Amino acid sequence: MSISTSAAPDTGRGPAEHDVRTQIIEAATAHFSHYGYDKTTVSDLAKAIGFSKAYIYKFFSSKQAIGEVICANCLGQIERDVLDALEGVQAPPERLRLLFTVIVASSLRLFFQDRRLYEIAVAAATDDWPSVQAYKHRIHQLVEEIIQAGRAAGVFESGTPLGNTSRAVYQVLVPYLNPVTLPHVSALHAEAPEALYQLVLRSLAPPA
Amino acid sequence: MSISTSAAPDTGRGPAEHDVRTQIIEAATAHFSHYGYDKTTVSDLAKAIGFSKAYIYKFFSSKQAIGEVICANCLGQIERDVLDALEGVQAPPERLRLLFTVIVASSLRLFFQDRRLYEIAVAAATDDWPSVQAYKHRIHQLVEEIIQAGRAAGVFESGTPLGNTSRAVYQVLVPYLNPVTLPHVSALHAEAPEALYQLVLRSLAPPA
Repeated sequence: MSISTSAAPDTGRGPAEHDVRTQIIEAATAHFSHYGYDKTTVSDLAKAIGFSKAYIYKFFSSKQAIGEVICANCLGQIERDVLDALEGVQAPPERLRLLFTVIVASSLRLFFQDRRLYEIAVAAATDDWPSVQAYKHRIHQLVEEIIQAGRAAGVFESGTPLGNTSRAVYQVLVPYLNPVTLPHVSALHAEAPEALYQLVLRSLAPPA
Repeated sequence: MSISTSAAPDTGRGPAEHDVRTQIIEAATAHFSHYGYDKTTVSDLAKAIGFSKAYIYKFFSSKQAIGEVICANCLGQIERDVLDALEGVQAPPERLRLLFTVIVASSLRLFFQDRRLYEIAVAAATDDWPSVQAYKHRIHQLVEEIIQAGRAAGVFESGTPLGNTSRAVYQVLVPYLNPVTLPHVSALHAEAPEALYQLVLRSLAPPA
């Protein structure tokens, strides 16, 4: 995965600042990959990059702020994979199937194939960082939008409260979004996301 | 929770051996609760109990064998809570509801209120100890029995393969059985098990 600072807030102070932020994020990612996120301090990072600690603090208020950018980039990549898969697909059941299967495949790839991201992802999930909260909120929203569209099209039942039902469906998905829980649930069998989708789809069936 | 050696294999060498095993398990549980399971060696344990290491090895082949008994007792307690709740309840939907709600409540209580069990439970779940494998197999079986009874009674659909459907329902439950994943999924909201049960129940509805 290429690292960019796309998720960093744009402070409008021009490309020079943007370049320094990018440089810090890239160096931090490389450093974390060797020494781990948990054990690295901002001082270690400053030494490794050749910047002063004070200079780094001009751009990022803490180690977590740097981790947040890396984490947000990673979650942003998973979301882009899902949205790319949904592009042009109209039928709500098929959109739900793609959400379940693509989000799990993409999370497995990003959290576990790129091991350097895993420790940051675990810290972010365990402490529920703002980037994680925002990501979970958007995925929950996406689930609700798909169910709402399915109800409007008459392919999903409309007898249950939308909020409760979308929360329950989101809840089935949650163990597969979290890097701590994912290895424990994905080990079950490769078809887990598809099987869960089929169960959820039956639960959404309109009365015959 | 009271610790017994009920889950230890009966080697038929009489009550004297049984008493020593009980004594070792009780001392080990107390020792683990102070020093943690991961950091304690059989030597530490031997010293603390006042037995020789060789004497402990006469009764348990390894530290994990001791942890296995404590873990099996804990899982046995969760299972008894579930079976007690199901006692006398005939209707398959109600049995499924009790399974979902009681197993989560009992797991939360045993894994997190009795903190000394948590570290052993995590080791057991992470390394998939035989006691954990057997427990998961029995819970999966219980799910399948309930679904099969519901099909026989005509209250659940019979159009899908029983094995696939019971595996998918079991899979919805899995994140709530594992001590590593449970805190991440149960934090969502207190009604999670009931909401998941309602979703699963709708997925099992027979064609109208």
